[in-house]
Amino acid sequence: MKLTTEIIDVDTGGVLKILLNPVDITHLAMFAGERVLIKYNNQETVAIAESTSLVNQGKVGILNEVQRELDVKEGQDVEVLSDVKTTSVLAIRKKMDGLPLTGEEIQAIVEDLVSGRLSDIDVAAFLVSEQILGMSLEETVHLTRAIAEEGEQMDFGGNVFDKHSIGGVPGNKVSLLIVPIVAAAGLLIPKTSSRAITSPSGTADTMEVLADVEFNVEELQKIVNKAKAAIVWGGSLNLAPADDLFIRVEHPLLIDPRPQMIASIMAKKLSTGIQHLVLDIPTGQGCKVTTMEEARKLSHDFITVGNELGVNVHCAMTYGSQPVGHAIGPALEAKEALETLMGGGPTSLIEKSTGLSGILLEMGGLAARGAGRKLAKEILTSGKALKKMREIIGAQNGNPNIEPEQIPIGEHTFDLLAPSDGYVATLSNRALVRIARAAGTPKLHGAGLYLHAKVGSRVKEGDAVLTVYAETEGKLSDAINVAKNLMPFTVEGMLLHTLTDTEQF
Amino acid sequence: MKLTTEIIDVDTGGVLKILLNPVDITHLAMFAGERVLIKYNNQETVAIAESTSLVNQGKVGILNEVQRELDVKEGQDVEVLSDVKTTSVLAIRKKMDGLPLTGEEIQAIVEDLVSGRLSDIDVAAFLVSEQILGMSLEETVHLTRAIAEEGEQMDFGGNVFDKHSIGGVPGNKVSLLIVPIVAAAGLLIPKTSSRAITSPSGTADTMEVLADVEFNVEELQKIVNKAKAAIVWGGSLNLAPADDLFIRVEHPLLIDPRPQMIASIMAKKLSTGIQHLVLDIPTGQGCKVTTMEEARKLSHDFITVGNELGVNVHCAMTYGSQPVGHAIGPALEAKEALETLMGGGPTSLIEKSTGLSGILLEMGGLAARGAGRKLAKEILTSGKALKKMREIIGAQNGNPNIEPEQIPIGEHTFDLLAPSDGYVATLSNRALVRIARAAGTPKLHGAGLYLHAKVGSRVKEGDAVLTVYAETEGKLSDAINVAKNLMPFTVEGMLLHTLTDTEQF
Repeated sequence: MKLTTEIIDVDTGGVLKILLNPVDITHLAMFAGERVLIKYNNQETVAIAESTSLVNQGKVGILNEVQRELDVKEGQDVEVLSDVKTTSVLAIRKKMDGLPLTGEEIQAIVEDLVSGRLSDIDVAAFLVSEQILGMSLEETVHLTRAIAEEGEQMDFGGNVFDKHSIGGVPGNKVSLLIVPIVAAAGLLIPKTSSRAITSPSGTADTMEVLADVEFNVEELQKIVNKAKAAIVWGGSLNLAPADDLFIRVEHPLLIDPRPQMIASIMAKKLSTGIQHLVLDIPTGQGCKVTTMEEARKLSHDFITVGNELGVNVHCAMTYGSQPVGHAIGPALEAKEALETLMGGGPTSLIEKSTGLSGILLEMGGLAARGAGRKLAKEILTSGKALKKMREIIGAQNGNPNIEPEQIPIGEHTFDLLAPSDGYVATLSNRALVRIARAAGTPKLHGAGLYLHAKVGSRVKEGDAVLTVYAETEGKLSDAINVAKNLMPFTVEGMLLHTLTDTEQF
Repeated sequence: MKLTTEIIDVDTGGVLKILLNPVDITHLAMFAGERVLIKYNNQETVAIAESTSLVNQGKVGILNEVQRELDVKEGQDVEVLSDVKTTSVLAIRKKMDGLPLTGEEIQAIVEDLVSGRLSDIDVAAFLVSEQILGMSLEETVHLTRAIAEEGEQMDFGGNVFDKHSIGGVPGNKVSLLIVPIVAAAGLLIPKTSSRAITSPSGTADTMEVLADVEFNVEELQKIVNKAKAAIVWGGSLNLAPADDLFIRVEHPLLIDPRPQMIASIMAKKLSTGIQHLVLDIPTGQGCKVTTMEEARKLSHDFITVGNELGVNVHCAMTYGSQPVGHAIGPALEAKEALETLMGGGPTSLIEKSTGLSGILLEMGGLAARGAGRKLAKEILTSGKALKKMREIIGAQNGNPNIEPEQIPIGEHTFDLLAPSDGYVATLSNRALVRIARAAGTPKLHGAGLYLHAKVGSRVKEGDAVLTVYAETEGKLSDAINVAKNLMPFTVEGMLLHTLTDTEQF
C-alpha cells in the first residue's frame, strides 16, 4: 500500500514504530501491533504499526526511530507491506513447536530485539516458550554469544577473574570483600555489577555509598589500569543491551527462565574478556534455587556453557536461607563491609567472602587446591585487602580514607522485638526484602535493616531482633506497616498465628 | 508513590494506560509496560504504566480510559503503587507452570482482557502457554463461558440452529445456500459470520455483495422476526469482544491454539442462544486440520464442550484440499451462490451445502436420520431456498430481485494457462488465497479468481486453468506477479521445477 509520510517527532525508546489509520490497518489485512515492511528510496525497514485515528487515511505517521532508519522527510511516498515474516518471528514460532533453534535463528532474535524490530508480543512469546520448554545447552551457548555480541567488548590485557552471584539473598555484600582480597593477591578483577531491581541493594548500589560507580568503557579501563580492580555498575557500560530488554518482559510475567539467567550472566562476563569465574549459587528455602539437586543441575549447566565459551567456571553452592551478615540496605551494607575489611565483621560474611576468594586464588594458581581460603583470610586480616579497597575507592572518585562511622545511616529507627523467650527459628528473606524496600532502599541509601539476631540465636522477650532504618518518618511508618503484616522472623515458642507471611505469596 | 495528575486527551483503544517519567519508573522498582495500582478518592484501578520523558518527574500522565475510570481532574494527587499481582496475572503464571486453571481464574483473565487491564505481554504469555501446553476440556468450557459472558446475549425465542466452518478453505460460500435451505424448511437460523482476516472473503464479505450485513442486536432481532433467518457480520454485534483481543495477539505470532478456536466459535454461538450446531471441519493438505485423526480429535472436543454448554454439536469433516466450487472473492462467490440457488452451480458446492443442511434438518426433526440431504436437495431444486434467500436479502436492505449478471465483477482479467496437456494434479489453497488477496480481495468486492478446472480435470496446453479478476490494472498486475512466484496449480506432466510455492512457506 502506498502511503504519504507524516513526520511525528516522538521517541519510542529504541523500538521501530509507525502509526497508521485504523482503516488502513484493516485494508492491509493486519492488526494493530503487527509488523510491516516500509520501503522508501531503495531502503527498507521492518517496524511495528500502531493504530491511531490521529493519523489520516492514506498517511503513515513516522516516529523518530524509523525516520532515522529511512532518512525520510514529511510528505514522501512510501510503500507499506503487511504479512512480514522475519527470520526472528519464524524462529520464535519454531521454538513454540518445541524444535531446537540454530545459532543463526537465535542471533536473529537477539539482533531484532536490540534494533527495535520485535514487539512485546514477540519477546513474551520467546521467553514463555523458553520458560515452559527450556533450551538445550547448545542453544544457551548461542544465546549467550548473541547477547554478548550486541554489547560493548572490553580487553583488559591479561587474565581476567570475576565473582558473580545469581542473587536472591539480602545483605550479600561479599563482592566488596572478594574484589579487594583477590586484587590484593595480584589478580585482575574488574567487577561489573548490577543495581537492585527488586532487592534492597545491588552491589552497585552498595558500592555507590563509598565511590562513583557509573563509568563508560574508557573510564573503566583507566580505573583498572590504576587499581587492577574495580566495582562498577554494568548498566552504564552497555555490555548487554539485549539483556535489559529481556528482563523488562520477564519481570511483569514473574518468570526467570534458567537459560536466560545463564546467558545473561555469562554474556556480561564474556564482554569483560573473562577467563576465570567463581559463581555463587545461594541455595535453600526463599532462594532462587531451593534444593541441592537443582543447584547441582544449574552448576553443571553453567560449567558446560562456560567451557564452550572458553571460560573456566567454578560454582559454589552457599547457604542462602537467611541474609549474609547482619546489615541490609546500601549504607548499612557498605558500613558492614568496611568494618569487616578493618578486622571486625560477622563470621558468616568473613567465611563466605574468604571461601569464594579462596577459589579464585586457587584458579589463579596463587594457592594450592584447598589452601585458597587460608590465603584469603591472611590477606583480609593482614589489612592488605583494606588497603586495596581504599585504592579502588580512590580510583572511583571516592574518599579513600573513609571510616565506617562517617557513612550516613537513616536516623529514623524502629525495633522489632522478640515476643517471647526462645531461639530465633526462622528469618524470611522475602519479608525482610519487602520491609527494607518499604523503608526506601535502594533509592534512599541510608534506609535498611540491621539484624541483631539470626537463626539459632537465643533471644529474651522484648529483645530487639532487628532494627528498621529510614531517612524519613513517613518511610519508617511504611516499613513498620509492612513488617506488621509480614512477621519477618519467628521465635521458637511464639504464637504461630502471627505468621501471616506465607499467606502473602 | 504520590504523584500529581496531568490529563492527556488521548484514547488508548480500551487499554487502561498511564504515562510516567523514567525516573519515577525506576523509583517504583518496576519496568515500563508493567502494571500499577492507582488510588484516588477511595477509588482505584489497575493500569499499564508506559515510560516517557514527556511527563515530568512527580507527575502521572492520565490518558482517557483511566481518566474515565477514576473520574479524576488535572492537578490532583493520586497514589501509584507498583508490584501489583492481580488474579489474572498470577493465573497466567500458574498456567505456565502447567497447572490447570479454575473457572474463576479464567474468568479473571477474560474480564481483565476486556476491561483493558492486561498488557500485550500478559496476553501473549497466556496464548503461548495454551499453544504449548494445551487446555483441558474443562478449562475450555470455562474459557467459552467467560468469553460469552463478556459479550451481548440474544434471545430469538425459539430453538436456534446454526452452521459454522472452522475455515481455511477458499471459496467456501456454502452458508449462502445452507441458511436459506434450512430456513425454508422452517428452522430458525440467525447466522452471524465473520469478515475475512487473511482469506479472500468471509461469509459476511460475500453476503455484503447482496445486502447490508452490519446491524446491531435490535436490528438483527427484527430481521429474524421477519425472515426467520439472517446472514450478518458478527463483528457489529459485539458478541465476543474478548475474542478480537485474543486474535490480535495470535495473528502476529502465527498461532491458533485449539482451545482458543473452540472457545471463540462456541462463545459466539452461545451468545445467539443456539441449541443445534453443525460444524464443518475442512480436512486435508493445506487446511487448518490436515489429517482425519486430528479432525476426529477436534470433533470430539467440540462435541464434548458443546454438551457441557447445552449445545447439540454435529461435526462434519469435509474435503478441504481445494476450493469449494469455482469462484473465489466476494462478488464472484455471491454470484456463484445465487446461480446455485437458481438451479445451476457446481456439484461440489451443491453436495457440500445440501449435506450440511441435511444434518441440520435431521437435528431439527424434519427428516429421518440419513434422509436430510434428500430433503435439502428438494428444497434447493424446488426454488424454495431461492425464495427464502430473496426474503433474507430484502430484510437486510438488499435488492431481493437481484440477478447474478447484475453483480459487478472486476473488469481487468488475466488467464493462467495450462503449460501442457494433462490432468490438473494439485491446486494450492495457500497460493490461490495469496493471488486473490493481491488482486484486492476482500476489500475490493469485484476482485477474485475463477477456476475453470479443478483437481482431476483434463486440460489441454494453453487452456485457461483459472482467471484472475481485479478492479484496477495495478491490482491485476500485483496478482499476476504473485501468481508467477507461486504457481497455484500443477498439471500432471508439467515441469516440476516451476513448483516454487513450497519454498515460500
